[in-house]
Amino acid sequence: MKRIVAPWLLFAATLCPAGQLFAATPYATGHPRLLLGAEDVAALRDSWQQSELFRTAVDQAIADMEPHLRQLPDVPVPRDAGGGYSHERHKANGIVLAQAGALFQWTGNATYADLVRRLLLAYATLYPDLGAHPERKEQAPGRLFWQSLNESVWLVYAIQGYDAAYETMDGADRKTIETKLLRPMSRFLSVESPETFDRIHNHGTWATAAVGMTGYVLNEPRYVRMALLGTGEDGETGYLAQLRQLFSPDGYYMEGPYYQRYALMPFVLFAKAIERNEPERAIFDFRDGIIGKAIRTTIQLSYAGLFFPVNDAIRDKGLDTVELDHAIAIAYGASGDPALLSLVDDASNLVLTADALRFAQAKEAGEEEPFPFASRHFRDGPAGDRGALTILRSGAAPGHSAALLKATSHGFSHGHFDRLHWMFYDNGGEVVTDYGAARFLNVEQKSGGRYLPENASWAKQSIAHNTIVVGGQSQFQGSATRADRSWPTQHFYQASAYQASAYQTSADVQIVSALEESAYEGTRLRRTLLLIEWSAVEFPFVLDVVRAGSTRPQRYDMPLYYKGHTIESVPPTTAATALRPLGESSGYQHLWMVGETALPAGSRLAHTWLRRGRFYTYTALANAPLRVTSTQVGANDPNFNLRSERGLMLRTEPIENLAVVGVLEPHGEYNGAREYTVRGRPLITDLQRFTGAGKDLVTIATASDQLAVALSYDANPNTAHTLETAAGTYRWHGYYRVFTRGGSTTTDGADI
Amino acid sequence: MKRIVAPWLLFAATLCPAGQLFAATPYATGHPRLLLGAEDVAALRDSWQQSELFRTAVDQAIADMEPHLRQLPDVPVPRDAGGGYSHERHKANGIVLAQAGALFQWTGNATYADLVRRLLLAYATLYPDLGAHPERKEQAPGRLFWQSLNESVWLVYAIQGYDAAYETMDGADRKTIETKLLRPMSRFLSVESPETFDRIHNHGTWATAAVGMTGYVLNEPRYVRMALLGTGEDGETGYLAQLRQLFSPDGYYMEGPYYQRYALMPFVLFAKAIERNEPERAIFDFRDGIIGKAIRTTIQLSYAGLFFPVNDAIRDKGLDTVELDHAIAIAYGASGDPALLSLVDDASNLVLTADALRFAQAKEAGEEEPFPFASRHFRDGPAGDRGALTILRSGAAPGHSAALLKATSHGFSHGHFDRLHWMFYDNGGEVVTDYGAARFLNVEQKSGGRYLPENASWAKQSIAHNTIVVGGQSQFQGSATRADRSWPTQHFYQASAYQASAYQTSADVQIVSALEESAYEGTRLRRTLLLIEWSAVEFPFVLDVVRAGSTRPQRYDMPLYYKGHTIESVPPTTAATALRPLGESSGYQHLWMVGETALPAGSRLAHTWLRRGRFYTYTALANAPLRVTSTQVGANDPNFNLRSERGLMLRTEPIENLAVVGVLEPHGEYNGAREYTVRGRPLITDLQRFTGAGKDLVTIATASDQLAVALSYDANPNTAHTLETAAGTYRWHGYYRVFTRGGSTTTDGADI
Repeated sequence: MKRIVAPWLLFAATLCPAGQLFAATPYATGHPRLLLGAEDVAALRDSWQQSELFRTAVDQAIADMEPHLRQLPDVPVPRDAGGGYSHERHKANGIVLAQAGALFQWTGNATYADLVRRLLLAYATLYPDLGAHPERKEQAPGRLFWQSLNESVWLVYAIQGYDAAYETMDGADRKTIETKLLRPMSRFLSVESPETFDRIHNHGTWATAAVGMTGYVLNEPRYVRMALLGTGEDGETGYLAQLRQLFSPDGYYMEGPYYQRYALMPFVLFAKAIERNEPERAIFDFRDGIIGKAIRTTIQLSYAGLFFPVNDAIRDKGLDTVELDHAIAIAYGASGDPALLSLVDDASNLVLTADALRFAQAKEAGEEEPFPFASRHFRDGPAGDRGALTILRSGAAPGHSAALLKATSHGFSHGHFDRLHWMFYDNGGEVVTDYGAARFLNVEQKSGGRYLPENASWAKQSIAHNTIVVGGQSQFQGSATRADRSWPTQHFYQASAYQASAYQTSADVQIVSALEESAYEGTRLRRTLLLIEWSAVEFPFVLDVVRAGSTRPQRYDMPLYYKGHTIESVPPTTAATALRPLGESSGYQHLWMVGETALPAGSRLAHTWLRRGRFYTYTALANAPLRVTSTQVGANDPNFNLRSERGLMLRTEPIENLAVVGVLEPHGEYNGAREYTVRGRPLITDLQRFTGAGKDLVTIATASDQLAVALSYDANPNTAHTLETAAGTYRWHGYYRVFTRGGSTTTDGADI
Repeated sequence: MKRIVAPWLLFAATLCPAGQLFAATPYATGHPRLLLGAEDVAALRDSWQQSELFRTAVDQAIADMEPHLRQLPDVPVPRDAGGGYSHERHKANGIVLAQAGALFQWTGNATYADLVRRLLLAYATLYPDLGAHPERKEQAPGRLFWQSLNESVWLVYAIQGYDAAYETMDGADRKTIETKLLRPMSRFLSVESPETFDRIHNHGTWATAAVGMTGYVLNEPRYVRMALLGTGEDGETGYLAQLRQLFSPDGYYMEGPYYQRYALMPFVLFAKAIERNEPERAIFDFRDGIIGKAIRTTIQLSYAGLFFPVNDAIRDKGLDTVELDHAIAIAYGASGDPALLSLVDDASNLVLTADALRFAQAKEAGEEEPFPFASRHFRDGPAGDRGALTILRSGAAPGHSAALLKATSHGFSHGHFDRLHWMFYDNGGEVVTDYGAARFLNVEQKSGGRYLPENASWAKQSIAHNTIVVGGQSQFQGSATRADRSWPTQHFYQASAYQASAYQTSADVQIVSALEESAYEGTRLRRTLLLIEWSAVEFPFVLDVVRAGSTRPQRYDMPLYYKGHTIESVPPTTAATALRPLGESSGYQHLWMVGETALPAGSRLAHTWLRRGRFYTYTALANAPLRVTSTQVGANDPNFNLRSERGLMLRTEPIENLAVVGVLEPHGEYNGAREYTVRGRPLITDLQRFTGAGKDLVTIATASDQLAVALSYDANPNTAHTLETAAGTYRWHGYYRVFTRGGSTTTDGADI
């Protein structure tokens, strides 16, 4: 393939009189120069067919492209909102441009390049005369689409097609496409829409990526500078500012995993283009390698391939999404990390880039290693001081246990009022769950696929989460504006502290503790979550210690939502003979009360359920009398939008101070096919709490063994603590200590 | 290994003075001679390690046996009922005997043979002094176990161990084991328990298999004769009579797939022993090869590896159960059918027999073919005249569609009152469902793992099934005794009749129709179910035509239970603001009424749900006004034993004649990971019924195409029918005809 450099240099110089903060040299040699590079194609065009995985991906793309080759460009006048014909057609055309371009590069078949040319020329005819879209959204309207966000996404795809087919076109076609489509659209998305382009927000990232990538292809430094530094070129906004502000130092995106995935796409695509065209920027090293961190954090925010569905989240999303297809390939290209190879198995998840080809080749050469899923404490906020999302894992193998504590900042309009919410995953699936969003994505009958009314009235409310609800109201009275102003305090985190006694038993302990003081005025909520591997029981178990204190008596509600079939409750639940909603607002109106029982202060509740062939027993006790309510989601749901999920709710009378200790123990096996059931009852049969001077001691016992967990709630590792209890006197240093039977242990809890 | 023949010949002659209807020659040469033969081991002992699958199975068995080698024989005095220690220990010991025997044969490691010897000697010490079991069941008590059934199963396993280790033992040990254990137990199970042994029932099969297999090993013809022909040796009872009477000519077992699987085990194990020891009986040819038919029918009664859960059925049971492990291996040994090879993939499903080894070798040699799952009409009853279970399938590939009509005899105490119940499977899973049994097998907290009270009060009742309930009562007023006396009439069945028009469309039609006249006095119920592959729609769809007629006005209820999330109901359902049970008895007391709507006569209901990424729309209309009720299982369930499943119920006011036409159309795709939804609305938008002179015409239309199905309900293929309707005049011969647009078709329905 010919490499033509000179003509566009001249062309670019003509159209680009902008200031010279950056050198006016061309960015990369020849075309293409975005995700796919001219040098990649030259090096790999003869060898890609040897990779079965990549060849399959190319074959699938060829098959998908087939109908488009046989039809005239369909470029309708913009008319419809999201979901309508013109909207979906333009969306599809953008992807066709990128895919046809890539196919031309890999196969050398000029038909694909001609498809790109014809389609772009059709857009160049349509675009100049477009005004605002007839269905424009109030904020950030587009021209081709109802919102400019879609237009940015379109350009990110379309510019890849132009870049790939560039050298097959003559000067006249290039001029038409650039002056009538690519340049006007870039101007529209940047200087003409600064409210989006200069916003530190994922819509801004799409806009800067689109304009910046176009700048590289058109050799237009002004576009690149605006993309990187904002329209003012001062770095106050733009892509680099977004990279600084939208991710925490640990690569966590404040809206949670579902939107982190979505936001990731323009970040990684533009990063790849920057790396190729301006390697001297070392974009992958920017801010201590924040792009790689963001990708790896997104991966760590999953279990068995699916993201933890905190905040507004569609539960089907995981590592097999198109965003991760690109992110994993680009991360592999940047790092060569063989652990990434284990995350993609299916050719349909392989994008048509050189990174993806090298990925496939390495995988086929057997270089794959397991991805190191691990316990992680992801700090939130640009400076990492706005709370954290913590995942405690018992390992990385399929079926490992994972406990999650959500103590992050709110996350704007997609945040849920769920501070100190926890979840538990085990044996390959969810056990203690998050409802996710109330939404059927793209299902027209369900409010056109948008967020359903029950998303606000149920899914976002505090009572829909495994947190502490005070006074029957959601945290911050359901105001996102108020919630965005504060965040929980991270008290303590320790990933793994193996504590072995000289005698029989040992325990590997992981712990996180957080404090929330602003969700309810005058109320402090503290949750300490431990994942403990103890030789006296079968699987890692969770210890959950909650303390709440209010300046005046409050009713506390602690829901626990779980997947599985109820096996037994002790004391037994009295089933309701008719079902009524539990309340009238704050999400309570969506819960049926299906049964309840009374639990005296200090008495144990033991609730067992069965999930995917394993038993789970939640044993709990409180310092106050409780009503334990069995609930089912689905009341006041006129369109049957909600899933009928089961839960428990621990409820107090109005009191000032609450302390609840819970243990969640996985145990045994039910095997219907082989007709056996083992250990259908928990091994942990006793649970007690002792307290004094603000410290807690929790004892956990099986029939023959005992474990004691002491908590000082004081992160200073040097402070000595003593707690005298009816069970003996316990002494330790630091935040916590675990005592196994017969042995004193030497490891004290140390600070984060 | 030495082969000793002479000693036991003499030994047997001494102890066996019984009559000589059969020749007194030894049955097979040497030991072992049951599932595993001496000649097999000799031929295969050097080659089995080359099979990775079989070697893995042997390795797993070696690992499982490890703890037993290291401990003294644990043979407790019988004390506990099912689930208790002594019960479970004896059960486990039986399996250890068989497995250790097999491991000795394959590995030649004498440790395993010695384990068998020591364990059997321990039993020989215990057994002679046992009286009836302290927890004996009223019917058929055992000695080692609370019921003699468990004792038969134990002997089926134990005799395999003795047989395998026989040649390593000296005469004294053999004599002790035979005279103090095997012979007394065989006598106890046969002549001393004739009420079980001579019963035509699966408990009788276990007893005859145990005693017959013991007869072969001990060279005791009297045992073999009794086993084959009953204690009276007249063939009125015994194994051969059971083979004649317990299966229909199509190999269907009247209790349904779940118990068919269970009953199969002793049939196939004993058949293998007969074939080896008395090949002249040609047992696999008996009754037109009924054993092979029973095995293949059991396999056909599954979808995606799990049995259709009609009647009392644990839903986890399928092709990976130990009964099928044996049945598939033995069927392969008898037939060499390569399609069987596709049914076992996991070494844990490979038994340690020569058949299983040859199975593994053939599989590893690449001989596997897909199993020919197909539409089948399984007649019920010994003569095949007691109704039928019919499965209509669209193919055999994973994800094919299958519709099932249950119109069998009742099936004794495990039968459900569900005549004319239907189900639908698609896309790899259940869509229109059967609740199965209300039971958590072996889960102690759930009534000790026995059938739960809700099995009788809910799962067996008619309203728990997709059938027609008349007057709010279960069929036969819930009396199994009454139900056992009759069965539905099979009207018509045709597996596949491809009907192509000369014009655009074509349809492949499968049909079954049955009539029930005794479930409700004075009421006739007829259901005609069609599975139609029509080129105008995306997937095969179901057409369901119900006609009911009573001598006096009756309220008819037609439930439809489905898996999936409700997407839309037209007309819309009004949700209940509080939930109350639908009734007080006959199972209605377990249904919450969650919403309802009114449907005028002749109006269409369209109810869409989403299941595993595919949409399903049930479109229905009736000749009478309906109330359409949305239901949820779970009312009056004090111990939370029931699953919260969703259903619809079509309900009439009291009327004499009801006609309901329903279409179930699978359509579209919801893909959350890839963010697209296609065809979320059904293509079938119109459904009408025309009737006259006892015939029906149903028209089904998409926006651009139409199909008409004419039904005469007259199976005579030569009778000409005419139906004049507002939609035109239709003429056909035989039971039915499908008219595709524009074209007359030539294929008329022919008789079964």
